[in-house]
Amino acid sequence: MSAPIEDFYAVIPAGGVGSRLWPLSRAEAPKFLHDLTGSGVSLLRNTWDRLLPLTGPGRIAVVTGKAHEQRVEEELPDIDPANVFIESSQRESAAAIGLAAAILQRREPGVIIGSFAADHHISRPRAFDFAVQQAVAAARAGYISTIGIAPTEPSVGFGYIQLGDEIDVEGAPMAAIVERFVEKPDLETARRYYADRSFLWNAGMFISRADVLLAELAANEPELHAGLLEIAEAWDTDRRQEVCDRVWPDLKKIAIDYAVAEPAAQKGRLAVVPGHFDWDDVGDFASLAKLISGGRSDEMSILGQNDRVLVDESTGLVVSQTDRVIAVVGVEGLIVVDTADALLVTNSEHAQRVKSVVGALHARGSDSVL
Amino acid sequence: MSAPIEDFYAVIPAGGVGSRLWPLSRAEAPKFLHDLTGSGVSLLRNTWDRLLPLTGPGRIAVVTGKAHEQRVEEELPDIDPANVFIESSQRESAAAIGLAAAILQRREPGVIIGSFAADHHISRPRAFDFAVQQAVAAARAGYISTIGIAPTEPSVGFGYIQLGDEIDVEGAPMAAIVERFVEKPDLETARRYYADRSFLWNAGMFISRADVLLAELAANEPELHAGLLEIAEAWDTDRRQEVCDRVWPDLKKIAIDYAVAEPAAQKGRLAVVPGHFDWDDVGDFASLAKLISGGRSDEMSILGQNDRVLVDESTGLVVSQTDRVIAVVGVEGLIVVDTADALLVTNSEHAQRVKSVVGALHARGSDSVL
Repeated sequence: MSAPIEDFYAVIPAGGVGSRLWPLSRAEAPKFLHDLTGSGVSLLRNTWDRLLPLTGPGRIAVVTGKAHEQRVEEELPDIDPANVFIESSQRESAAAIGLAAAILQRREPGVIIGSFAADHHISRPRAFDFAVQQAVAAARAGYISTIGIAPTEPSVGFGYIQLGDEIDVEGAPMAAIVERFVEKPDLETARRYYADRSFLWNAGMFISRADVLLAELAANEPELHAGLLEIAEAWDTDRRQEVCDRVWPDLKKIAIDYAVAEPAAQKGRLAVVPGHFDWDDVGDFASLAKLISGGRSDEMSILGQNDRVLVDESTGLVVSQTDRVIAVVGVEGLIVVDTADALLVTNSEHAQRVKSVVGALHARGSDSVL
Repeated sequence: MSAPIEDFYAVIPAGGVGSRLWPLSRAEAPKFLHDLTGSGVSLLRNTWDRLLPLTGPGRIAVVTGKAHEQRVEEELPDIDPANVFIESSQRESAAAIGLAAAILQRREPGVIIGSFAADHHISRPRAFDFAVQQAVAAARAGYISTIGIAPTEPSVGFGYIQLGDEIDVEGAPMAAIVERFVEKPDLETARRYYADRSFLWNAGMFISRADVLLAELAANEPELHAGLLEIAEAWDTDRRQEVCDRVWPDLKKIAIDYAVAEPAAQKGRLAVVPGHFDWDDVGDFASLAKLISGGRSDEMSILGQNDRVLVDESTGLVVSQTDRVIAVVGVEGLIVVDTADALLVTNSEHAQRVKSVVGALHARGSDSVL
């Protein structure tokens, strides 16, 4: 294990519900609080454990909603309570990461922060560490850095980052300039990218000096930047609540990709480090099935209390959160998610549609199960 | 409505569990106790209601197991308790119907009995009545009668009865001799039968003078006949329990088809009346789906508490016995059966395999849900 990086802080935005994983993931129990990989701990705890060697326990911050404060502190008993940043309401990633940047910059000017989603799966910790260390080195040199994942298949489910020229930064031997960001491609394009090897998956990890990130935000979203600075100034005082109540609700909802990363890329200020580790955003049940089965589509994966699940000539995924007997007979690519008060049955092909089910249930007034 | 038929008694064997309908149908709550058609009452009660105009309430007997005595009497509050015949253990249809015949023959020599399954679905009551009236007329003339269902499709799921020469019996204008019984055919044969119109589905309804039926049984299964007579002799006395305990367990397990109907057909003593009404044995979830949807395979049928079932681009059947939210997304021909302690997910194609699931669950020791 490497020693913690002295001037580095990790920020974990823990906000999204993960509606494509309903009814497992819910407003009250979002994706990051679940053990989706059978590891025995939640994705949030996995993320913490992965970052800990790089930061030490006192230098990991979590940005989350009021509703999840208690559960986050239960999952992460070693977190410094001063590093749990509560959002008054959801304002997307630019506000969440920008808030953390502004607070941490006040506490420790020039600090480097790296933001890492609370609900992604990553294996091969040494390769992850090496990528982060390079990204921090590039950030120390003034770049905003990202880690792009070396694709393991021609996926149409992720955005891509095209590698540009190498940069010459000590400690970042694999870093390059980001040529451009590409939205989720069609299959033909994805195949071309996969063959090309200069395209990486955009995993939404950004590493940067806090002041550099805030300057980029100021250039692109000055009102959002001003609001975050006002809140950060009051944060460690008794005026926090009052200022948050006044300023936060009007902050612009925008993703960090649009508010910071893409504009920085256009200016040649965004560096990317290729990450050669397994990464999955566990975006829907099809990808969860794939993750659990290790890509073997000819078997039935079971997540949860599985000793009462009977599988007969079926493949796919059964998620069991109750002790009910579940019998699955003769269906391929099936997805069954069985919880105490809600049951989902779909297939791999339609896993993305689950999000619209949540919308439909909301419209019907079934919010108690959302 | 026609008046009750004076010398006629209906017998309802209510024995089978209906394992192909697990987890809806169970040892403790067999198929005949369920409302499978959304009519609001159980199949058993449907059967009673259908027979009542032909018999009156005092002349319907039910043969069932000890475990179901109470539920049967709850479903049929007007039944004469003396007409609930409890089997000590399951001994198949020849013993069940033979017992009823022997008891009723002692009580009322020369009575005509008709046996009708407790768990079939029949619509068009006037056509049913007309068929039974003809079958009774043929029985009065000494025949063992059956009602064969005029096929509505080339089914491979039922046995067939081939019509022979017409018989000349007053009150039975459509009756004919049974030429032969045919086991479940392959699809090509079924298509030929369907086109031919002289083949009817064997629905297992037998109508006969009790003494004629017993004589046929004596000829083919003398030991079974002797045992049943011994039990019947003791039935309405204080020796019933003692004789049942001694004789019943050794009775041969054989279907009435083999012990009575087929041998009678070979002797030219079996008459058949074509029944031109909708009939379904509701044998598995595929046939239940078809029954509920009226044969429209492009929709999702829902049985049970259905206001929390959300269907998105899916077809098939959802049976809901709980108040859980159920969301079904993008699956064709799906079958979901959701009960408090067990969940089945399969498709129409594999509906017949459900019986083997029950066997597998038994082998695993999951009997509490069987």
